[in-house]
Amino acid sequence: MYQAGYLKHFTEEVFLAIGCPEQEARLAAQVLVSADLRGVDSHGIARLAGYVRLYDHGRLNPNPEIKVVYETPSTAVVDGDRGLGLVVAPKAMEIAMEKAEKVGSGWVSVRNSNHFGIAGYHAMLALEKDMIGWTMTNAAPLVTPTFSLEKLLGTNPVAVAVPALEEPPFVADFASTAVAYGKFEILQRKGLPAPLGWAQDAEGNATTDSNAVKSGGGLLPLGSDREHGSHKGYGLGAIVDIFSGVLSGANFGPWVPPFATAGFMNAQEGVGLGTGHFLGAMRIDGFRPAEEFKKDMDKWIRAFRGAKAVDGQKVLIPGDPEREAEADRLANGIALLEPVVLSLGELAKRFNIPFENNL
Amino acid sequence: MYQAGYLKHFTEEVFLAIGCPEQEARLAAQVLVSADLRGVDSHGIARLAGYVRLYDHGRLNPNPEIKVVYETPSTAVVDGDRGLGLVVAPKAMEIAMEKAEKVGSGWVSVRNSNHFGIAGYHAMLALEKDMIGWTMTNAAPLVTPTFSLEKLLGTNPVAVAVPALEEPPFVADFASTAVAYGKFEILQRKGLPAPLGWAQDAEGNATTDSNAVKSGGGLLPLGSDREHGSHKGYGLGAIVDIFSGVLSGANFGPWVPPFATAGFMNAQEGVGLGTGHFLGAMRIDGFRPAEEFKKDMDKWIRAFRGAKAVDGQKVLIPGDPEREAEADRLANGIALLEPVVLSLGELAKRFNIPFENNL
Repeated sequence: MYQAGYLKHFTEEVFLAIGCPEQEARLAAQVLVSADLRGVDSHGIARLAGYVRLYDHGRLNPNPEIKVVYETPSTAVVDGDRGLGLVVAPKAMEIAMEKAEKVGSGWVSVRNSNHFGIAGYHAMLALEKDMIGWTMTNAAPLVTPTFSLEKLLGTNPVAVAVPALEEPPFVADFASTAVAYGKFEILQRKGLPAPLGWAQDAEGNATTDSNAVKSGGGLLPLGSDREHGSHKGYGLGAIVDIFSGVLSGANFGPWVPPFATAGFMNAQEGVGLGTGHFLGAMRIDGFRPAEEFKKDMDKWIRAFRGAKAVDGQKVLIPGDPEREAEADRLANGIALLEPVVLSLGELAKRFNIPFENNL
Repeated sequence: MYQAGYLKHFTEEVFLAIGCPEQEARLAAQVLVSADLRGVDSHGIARLAGYVRLYDHGRLNPNPEIKVVYETPSTAVVDGDRGLGLVVAPKAMEIAMEKAEKVGSGWVSVRNSNHFGIAGYHAMLALEKDMIGWTMTNAAPLVTPTFSLEKLLGTNPVAVAVPALEEPPFVADFASTAVAYGKFEILQRKGLPAPLGWAQDAEGNATTDSNAVKSGGGLLPLGSDREHGSHKGYGLGAIVDIFSGVLSGANFGPWVPPFATAGFMNAQEGVGLGTGHFLGAMRIDGFRPAEEFKKDMDKWIRAFRGAKAVDGQKVLIPGDPEREAEADRLANGIALLEPVVLSLGELAKRFNIPFENNL
């Protein structure tokens, strides 16, 4: 077990070692380890070695000049200068919130970035300002749209954070696919098949092969097949791609560069700059008094949480599972898998940073 | 077969007969019949008698004072004064586009409205101004969120329209459920079962009963079940509900009033005013030059449309099926089902408007 503070400190040291300025290394560590705290292990410190590989491949600028390249009072394009998405995204969100402060809402499309950690983190930055936060990002193509044999979209998540009064906030944070790719990696390690509806094989057939995506198949959009609405999941993923990639001048569709994960390292010819994100903030009192709105959000949340549920289950509010994971992991620490601990050990050795193997 | 112009004229006459001003009756007819043209029969003239029933029940104000009740440079709440959603929504979209013209984007949450026809129509209003259009609306509860036995959300659709240069625009318009309720009505008429994954029964079990929603069951969110991501479809429907209902001060969740469809007429105690919508417009050149963006959209569309597909199929761009339906129906006319023609005949008789039975 590891304490979050320990992992954050280690992560910060690694980012410092590749040349990030102190404040940005701290911010990046904060964002990355928030994923481990919130139970989204696939997006946390497990990816630290991947960011270092990005740096090794010359695709990550540790000391970027992040700048607004164009703006109106409520919109902007930010160029991340190949910086860590973990740093570029919260800075872009700050810009969106400053615009919202002035004119009611702010919308920032980002180019020339890379993986930004968990989408929900950035959306939640809006909460303490009584704003609604929106985040999207595109990602390397793993998803076959309805009827396609080619992988054309990433798992392209959407996160929306909405404050309540007495209740904890509503925080939806989900990929536009049936499942995250990480679920296949777990099954692969265990040698288990996948449920039908998660992936297709190289011929476009339904498959239970948990290696299908690596063998010419693809992840399926949310909805799984045409009869169950996969064209809607495809539409949602497409919207995310257009807002993040086309609107900013980043790469889009099949051209989004891969994150530095083994097996997906073969970069293609680009049509824009790096990976794209889209971040937005709306001031609640740009619509109605924040107190009234938040009282109604409490009512919304209580109606849903209190609804009659199927035996042994309850109706969850988006954000409940992550908040419960965070409470547990703050109290009891974070368990890391052996390959993750080994990858951190290698980073520790390479950069001469102390690291305890607590397996 | 009916020509669109004939149906529009008839619809306009009916709206005039219940007291709508001329310009609004024409606009409402235009919006309603655009659904029939685009192949979304469930949202077109088949619902005309339903709007009249709303009027008969005192829930529709034919001559509303639609007004902005609060605003900032980029946001507003519009009160629809119980007017036709078919009129309130395009007026709210005009306000969003005026704001976008001035400050880059405009976002309008609407209360005190009712059914607004097809979401895509309003989003597409942004296209000719080189803007991206967004539309959402909440609706009466038919959907059981993941693990819920209670119906808490409507089919809550999202539409996003994005212009391209030489290619036709990208127009995604989809409910946040596995299927629209209309698909069940078709099966009910034919006495056929439904595929698993569309609805649950009163105990929350998967069912093929096409009458399940009327017998204590519910429509399933996009994703169908927890294993296939129904919590994501639920999250999307919830976002639509919060933006449309809670942000505007309309009804939300289980309190959204029913459209005047037989079988769903039992209204509940309200928590706000009428039905809610959310409409947004973003000026493309608030991000990057519109010409550059639209060239990249052409590239996006061509990459997807040209992708290798499973045998006998092709990869569609959101909006393709509706555009093809429109071309066909403009050329060959619109076929109406017998019950629809009969309902129009009754309206014709009641209001003394000529109507040909072309069955």
